[in-house]
Amino acid sequence: MNIVRPTLLLDKAVCLRNISRMAEKAKSKKLKFRPHFKTHQSAVIGEWFREFGVTAITVSSVQMAEYFASHGWDDITIAFPVNVLEIDQINELGNKIKLNLLIENRESIEILSKGIKSQVGVFIEIDTGHNRSGIAANKIRNIQLILDVIRSNKKFEFKGLLSHTGHTYTAQSRHDIFNRHFDAVLKMKALKNQLQKEFPDIILSLGDTPAASLCDNFTGIDEIRPGNFIFYDLMQYQLGACSFEDIAVRLVCPVVGKHGSRSEVVIYGGAVHISKDSIINIDGKKLYGQIVVNHEGGKVLLDERNYLYKLSQEHGVIRTTVQEFHYFNVGDLIEVIPVHSCLTANLMGSYLTTEGEFIPMMSCEQSPKQNLQNMKFENS
Amino acid sequence: MNIVRPTLLLDKAVCLRNISRMAEKAKSKKLKFRPHFKTHQSAVIGEWFREFGVTAITVSSVQMAEYFASHGWDDITIAFPVNVLEIDQINELGNKIKLNLLIENRESIEILSKGIKSQVGVFIEIDTGHNRSGIAANKIRNIQLILDVIRSNKKFEFKGLLSHTGHTYTAQSRHDIFNRHFDAVLKMKALKNQLQKEFPDIILSLGDTPAASLCDNFTGIDEIRPGNFIFYDLMQYQLGACSFEDIAVRLVCPVVGKHGSRSEVVIYGGAVHISKDSIINIDGKKLYGQIVVNHEGGKVLLDERNYLYKLSQEHGVIRTTVQEFHYFNVGDLIEVIPVHSCLTANLMGSYLTTEGEFIPMMSCEQSPKQNLQNMKFENS
Repeated sequence: MNIVRPTLLLDKAVCLRNISRMAEKAKSKKLKFRPHFKTHQSAVIGEWFREFGVTAITVSSVQMAEYFASHGWDDITIAFPVNVLEIDQINELGNKIKLNLLIENRESIEILSKGIKSQVGVFIEIDTGHNRSGIAANKIRNIQLILDVIRSNKKFEFKGLLSHTGHTYTAQSRHDIFNRHFDAVLKMKALKNQLQKEFPDIILSLGDTPAASLCDNFTGIDEIRPGNFIFYDLMQYQLGACSFEDIAVRLVCPVVGKHGSRSEVVIYGGAVHISKDSIINIDGKKLYGQIVVNHEGGKVLLDERNYLYKLSQEHGVIRTTVQEFHYFNVGDLIEVIPVHSCLTANLMGSYLTTEGEFIPMMSCEQSPKQNLQNMKFENS
Repeated sequence: MNIVRPTLLLDKAVCLRNISRMAEKAKSKKLKFRPHFKTHQSAVIGEWFREFGVTAITVSSVQMAEYFASHGWDDITIAFPVNVLEIDQINELGNKIKLNLLIENRESIEILSKGIKSQVGVFIEIDTGHNRSGIAANKIRNIQLILDVIRSNKKFEFKGLLSHTGHTYTAQSRHDIFNRHFDAVLKMKALKNQLQKEFPDIILSLGDTPAASLCDNFTGIDEIRPGNFIFYDLMQYQLGACSFEDIAVRLVCPVVGKHGSRSEVVIYGGAVHISKDSIINIDGKKLYGQIVVNHEGGKVLLDERNYLYKLSQEHGVIRTTVQEFHYFNVGDLIEVIPVHSCLTANLMGSYLTTEGEFIPMMSCEQSPKQNLQNMKFENS
């Protein structure tokens, strides 16, 4: 392969192993595996899930649902608080596939109820501690208010309760992840107990990669929706949710400059390729990526004292130790292990597998004209 | 206009005023105006510059140069340390247009010298204090080493010295911006004095929006290359480089949730739309955007106590005061003023003007097939 500019390299074998492991785990715990496709955003990669028995998926936008529906997926949950402005797109999609929406407040379901024309499944979002979106788990009255509207419209089918335990991402230890996950499981089960009489088939759906990777107790939970696990990244590694060998993507970048006086290396690879998400390095500074260099025909993973520490639009600056500075030469290709693979993938728009296969993503397959049509401009 | 999802709204009139003002300033200071097109990345917007007499432009990658060359721009400086791996693309482009490359180390120019087949202009990058890339302004010997290679190859034409005074972005005050800019001007002029005997037409090129917007002293400088000024943003506003009325882009986002107990509003608009660049707010916390709401037929700019304070992939969370919480309703469209318009534009891939015109960007016009061809895969 002749790589000449920032390119997102994907190790398909690692990817398949990650999928396989998660699918196995779900099976052994009797959980429905409804993977989140927002991480890879690719129809080609989506197909890899089918051989592991996956038939239902999760996405984070109506656009993403449209994209995967057009690639043969017919059972999709949009795990994002419903955007009522997209009612036309929702109706169109709901007529084609089994579509589940997410509701987190009474206003949305009321507006939706007025405009809905297709049959849709409805999940109520529960906030189990992440404090981003969802109804706090102790506010059963707010859940009932939503259920009132669901009951009143035959287009709605109540499916269950869904939570994103995203506060596992800010956990300070593995133990902390276990605690937060277990707490979420208990909260969800308590709600199920209260609703099960009226809704015997109520589904409890949880979705976050750290807990899905690390935790074992899913008693009472019916479905998991992890997404990031397919690639993992440094954030997950720092949380203990994966090993280094599980990280399936790396951004290949050309070296364009060396500054010996300050032990710094300049690469072609910046915020528009990697994203500005960071973790805190051992020196207390922001780390935007760890580095793998090619050396004597092999690959060398450099330790955290050599790291991507500064990003502008197209420039990346790597700080290295004096001892390891010699690994870098102008014109070399080095590899950056990303902090947050979802955002890096989203920016890059396509993958190159280690076998040399080009894999486009959603953004790469849409034409401006499609965008234009989707937006339905009308001068008003 | 029927906006239903995150959309980058562009005020063309403000844009044109920003361009006009900068073009006028360059003219009055007898500076060549070579605007940086990495901010807007759009052929349509590029055309707006022509009526202000702009014929030469700056870009930050070979790909961007190819894009604008294919849209009629024939005098382009790639203001990024040359990536020698793209030698084939450089040769092809150098045969079509007046192409200037940027050199910051001896290794690049030596590698380039072996492969160059087309006539190209060469700028040497000077580090005037930003400490990202470039040769430190006091290292005349390193400049001479590069000039040796330039002199030895007739394909190269030495054009001059180029610096990005990016350390104006971390200035603590307006006064600080003036000082850093003036220091850069002095350093560049000192180098010019030493080289002018051999190169009487040597060009001094500076490029950063804060100094280009604020400073008046450009004596001895020949060319400016600001880019961000076309849109400006909160970062520039915080630096004092623009007024609020000069900010030309806003991300329109649907409101999807409200959480009165913590005075928070959830919007459809996250890291994949706005980018994770932030500034520090008055409360010492990260601010990802300021908010404009629609109220009683008009627009209300909320103060910094109401701000975008949390971003995940597709969610944005706005923290509001108790008094201003009522401005937000589920299903409303609100506007986010971005912290760093270059990164927001890059993520969004297209614009919608306030007049309802759809404007595609580079990424939106390229097909996956083009990407594939550009990458020239060969199994090795």
